[in-house]
Amino acid sequence: MENSTPTRKRGRPLKTDGSNMTTKEKLVRYGTVILTEKGLASTGLDEILKTVGVPKGSFYHYFASKDDFGLAVIQHYETYFANKLDRCLWNKNRTPLDCLADFIEEAKDGMTRHAFKRGCLIGNLGQELGALNEKFRVPLEKVFLDWQNRVADCLERAKTTGQISSQTDSQEMAAFFWIGWEGAILRAKLVKSCAPLDLFAKHFFNSF
Amino acid sequence: MENSTPTRKRGRPLKTDGSNMTTKEKLVRYGTVILTEKGLASTGLDEILKTVGVPKGSFYHYFASKDDFGLAVIQHYETYFANKLDRCLWNKNRTPLDCLADFIEEAKDGMTRHAFKRGCLIGNLGQELGALNEKFRVPLEKVFLDWQNRVADCLERAKTTGQISSQTDSQEMAAFFWIGWEGAILRAKLVKSCAPLDLFAKHFFNSF
Repeated sequence: MENSTPTRKRGRPLKTDGSNMTTKEKLVRYGTVILTEKGLASTGLDEILKTVGVPKGSFYHYFASKDDFGLAVIQHYETYFANKLDRCLWNKNRTPLDCLADFIEEAKDGMTRHAFKRGCLIGNLGQELGALNEKFRVPLEKVFLDWQNRVADCLERAKTTGQISSQTDSQEMAAFFWIGWEGAILRAKLVKSCAPLDLFAKHFFNSF
Repeated sequence: MENSTPTRKRGRPLKTDGSNMTTKEKLVRYGTVILTEKGLASTGLDEILKTVGVPKGSFYHYFASKDDFGLAVIQHYETYFANKLDRCLWNKNRTPLDCLADFIEEAKDGMTRHAFKRGCLIGNLGQELGALNEKFRVPLEKVFLDWQNRVADCLERAKTTGQISSQTDSQEMAAFFWIGWEGAILRAKLVKSCAPLDLFAKHFFNSF
């Protein structure tokens, strides 16, 4: 049986098709999908274990509790999403604000592809658990602050290229971005359309 | 035993201390509190029944299912919140934009009073169920549209008094308000502070 804290060889990429993943990685990977759709309370461990093909009794070999599993999923999503943000925001062929607009378009494509059933794992779990469970509140807010810093860096670059005023408070605007963006994702799920994302983006870019 | 669809005498107010409420009203009233904090999946019916003092077997005398109970709670919150909005937004002693600012201050007081554990029932259930359950998605979006119309009416009044430009698209700005506001409520729960509410309000009012 695999070690409960499997390590991958340095530089070996985490495969997305699941073929070379450890069981723990598969559990986290599938957990990311299902928790993004359903949240923690509505997700039965049985469903995840069955999909991944892990015997019911083995779960606690990998995770101390369902909460610990949820925290591992958050950590996985944080890394995945930071990479996605960096790929969009550091595109040297685009202006900084166009990079942010590209991230928005990519997110819209993702929402549409998943029929507006998946939103943002951090927003979902933040809504579900942020006020209830300190063990989740702190890491969830940490993720938002990380994303906020990445967008603030992008806005700082937009200042150096003269795309936005040098007087702009990049941190404040980045905080405003994530506040409105998460609200827009929530509403997009309700109306099953990208309109709320477009509406927020329009007003966000107009505020510079 | 009370009728499963109790009616109140015309004009008899719904008491907030629970003394004159029917059992069904008490269940909905306490359900509103607990679902606003915990959402539907995390809320055990036992907890509600025990608090209200209703025998476990009686629940299905009042509601066909837990979902039906959730829908009754949404309907109750819709009425409560529409009254709250109207009280703030139709204050004749204040300018229309000040009325909206008053609503924001009242919401901040409420969040603070409840230690940032309660947010917005519609935002919470929208996040939890909007993408999963069509039976909830439609009424939840209907509530947002109702709130949106009330804010749009307020902005129309701000246009007639010259407080904002007559070119303002009131419906669009009202949609922007609720998108950002729900995102700000979510973040306020995570940071346990009104800062996200203030930040969004600042940028919202600056966009006129």
